[in-house]
Amino acid sequence: MLSEFDLIKQYFDRSRPGKAVLGIGDDCALLAPAPGMQTAISSDMLVEGRHFFAGEDARRLGHKSLAVNLSDLAAMGAKPVGFTLALALPSADQAWLQGFSQGLFALADAHGCELIGGDTTKGPLNICITIFGEVAPGHALRRDAAQPGDDIWISGTLGDARLALAGYNNELALTAEEQEAAGLRMHLPAPRVALGMLLASQRLARAALDISDGLVGDLGHILKKSQVGATLNADALPCGPVLATKDIGLRRRFMAAGGDDYELCFTAPVSSRDAIIAAGAQCGTAVTRVGVIDAAPGLRLVDADGGTLALQLQGFDHFAGTAGS
Amino acid sequence: MLSEFDLIKQYFDRSRPGKAVLGIGDDCALLAPAPGMQTAISSDMLVEGRHFFAGEDARRLGHKSLAVNLSDLAAMGAKPVGFTLALALPSADQAWLQGFSQGLFALADAHGCELIGGDTTKGPLNICITIFGEVAPGHALRRDAAQPGDDIWISGTLGDARLALAGYNNELALTAEEQEAAGLRMHLPAPRVALGMLLASQRLARAALDISDGLVGDLGHILKKSQVGATLNADALPCGPVLATKDIGLRRRFMAAGGDDYELCFTAPVSSRDAIIAAGAQCGTAVTRVGVIDAAPGLRLVDADGGTLALQLQGFDHFAGTAGS
Repeated sequence: MLSEFDLIKQYFDRSRPGKAVLGIGDDCALLAPAPGMQTAISSDMLVEGRHFFAGEDARRLGHKSLAVNLSDLAAMGAKPVGFTLALALPSADQAWLQGFSQGLFALADAHGCELIGGDTTKGPLNICITIFGEVAPGHALRRDAAQPGDDIWISGTLGDARLALAGYNNELALTAEEQEAAGLRMHLPAPRVALGMLLASQRLARAALDISDGLVGDLGHILKKSQVGATLNADALPCGPVLATKDIGLRRRFMAAGGDDYELCFTAPVSSRDAIIAAGAQCGTAVTRVGVIDAAPGLRLVDADGGTLALQLQGFDHFAGTAGS
Repeated sequence: MLSEFDLIKQYFDRSRPGKAVLGIGDDCALLAPAPGMQTAISSDMLVEGRHFFAGEDARRLGHKSLAVNLSDLAAMGAKPVGFTLALALPSADQAWLQGFSQGLFALADAHGCELIGGDTTKGPLNICITIFGEVAPGHALRRDAAQPGDDIWISGTLGDARLALAGYNNELALTAEEQEAAGLRMHLPAPRVALGMLLASQRLARAALDISDGLVGDLGHILKKSQVGATLNADALPCGPVLATKDIGLRRRFMAAGGDDYELCFTAPVSSRDAIIAAGAQCGTAVTRVGVIDAAPGLRLVDADGGTLALQLQGFDHFAGTAGS
C-alpha cells in the first residue's frame, strides 16, 4: 500500500535545485520574489465529471490541470514561477499517478514552472492547482483596462474543443478522425504564455483574459470591468480546423460561445497592430483581429457585411449547469 | 438560482481596499511582495467525510478550513498576507454559504489575511485553500534545523480533538458537556500565528511544525529532516482539559498520537528558555517543554521517572485510512 508520504516522494518530489528557497516537505514552501516584481496568483479546481470525463487519460489530465492555470498567467502577461498541487484521489493508483505526474511535469518543465508544495488526500477525484507568476508593476493585462477604439484580438483558433464535446455527447456525429483531432484541443490546450508575456512586457495590449467559458461570455467580463461595449465580427473569428468544415451556424455558435478554448482575448490600441502581428509570429501563435471596443455599452455581433446577428449566447455557468440560458 | 458569479459577489468579494494590488475578479490576483521578504506558501484540501463530517456546521467549517492553513504559516513563523479559496459545492446553498463565509472571514480578519482569489465549481464538497505569508530571509522555522541538545516545546494542549473524535465515533462514552468542550478543539482550532511569528522574528526557535497528524508522527518529520533523534517525556505533555479527566493510558495515547491538534511543536536552544516563556505569555499561548533533541536517531518516549514507554504510535496516513498500524 502506497502511503501518502511515499506517494509524494515517488511521483511529485523531484528534489532538484529550483527557484524555490524551500520546496516540498516543510509546512510551507518559500519563494524569494524577484525584487520589484509583483506576484500573479490564480487557482483552478478540476472536478471529475464536471471538467473532465471519468476515466480521462491521466497524462492528458496532468497536462490540462496545469495548462488551465498557466493560461491564467498568460492572460495576465505574467511569467510562470511555480505552483502548488492539491489532489484528492479515490485511491493511490500507481499507473494513474505515473501518467498524471508525467503530463504535469512535461508542461511544467516547458514553462519553467516548478511544483513547490501541495496536499494529497483520499476523496472524490479533485485536482486543485494554485499557480504563481511574476510581472512588472503596471504591466499586468487587467480586465478593466480596455478603451473605446481598441482592437479586439484572439490568439489561435476557437471552437474545436466545443466541437469535440459535442461529438462525445452525441450532439452531432463526427468521424473518428474529426473526434480525435478536435479532442486534442479539448484535452491538451496550449496556454499562450509566451504571447501574454510579450503583450505585457512590450505594453502592446491593454485588457486581456483567457477564454475558458466561451468568447462572448468571457469578453463580457472585460466590457463590464472596463465599462465599455464591443462589436465583434462573427466572420472574422478564427475557426479551428475541424470546426471549419461544418456549417456556418454551428461554426458561429461554437466559436462565439464554445468554451474550453484557452486562447487569449485581448484589446490593444490601433497603433499596436504591427507589433502584435510580429509578437504572434515570434512565439508561433496566430493572432486575429476580430472586433473593436465601443464607448456604447453592450456587445454587438455582426457579420462581414455589418449586419447584426441575433445570437443569444452565454458563457458557461458552473451552477446553472449548462451553457446558454 | 444563484449563478457562479453572483455567488462569488454575494459571499466572497468584499471589494474593499486591501493588501492585494488586484483582488477577486481578474484572471489572477496581484500581490506586491514586501521588499526583501520571502513568501511562504501552503495548500490544504479538506474533503467531506475525510477531514470533517457530512453536515458539519458551515460556520465552523469556514473557520477550520482557514485555521489549518494559518497553522502552516504559524509553523514557519510567517506573517499572514492572503489566501485563495477553491470550492467545489454540491449546490449553491445560500444558508451554507452565509455560514461558511462568516466563519472564514471572522478568522481571516482576526489575522489580517485577505481573500484574493479562487475558484468555485459544482462537485462533491471540497475546500482547497492556498495561503501566503511573509517571513524575513533566514528567519523561517524549517523542519531541518533541529540540533542535538535543543529543548522540544509544545504550544497549548494536546489530545482533546482526538478525544472528541473518539466520542463521535463511539470509541468511548463522553458526557454531553465533555463532547461539546472537546469538540470545540476539533472544530475551532486556534492557529498559533502570533507565537510562530515571535519565535521566528526573535530567532528563539530552530525547527518547528504544526501538529496535525499526531505529535509522534509529526515530530518524526523534524527528526528525519534534521537527522537527529529525540526523547519525549510523556508525563510532561500538556493535556487538554477534558482529556485530563481520563485515565493515563488514554491520555498518553491521545496526546502522543491524536491528531487535529494544530499546536506548534518546536525545538530551541536551552538559552532561549526564558524568552520563549515570555513570548508565550505575550501572546497568551501556553508553552511547555516536553523533551530534548538527541544526536542518536530514533524517538524515545519516557515517563517522568525516565522509564521507557513502549508505545507503538504512528501519525495519520490519508491513504492507509486510519491512525496507528
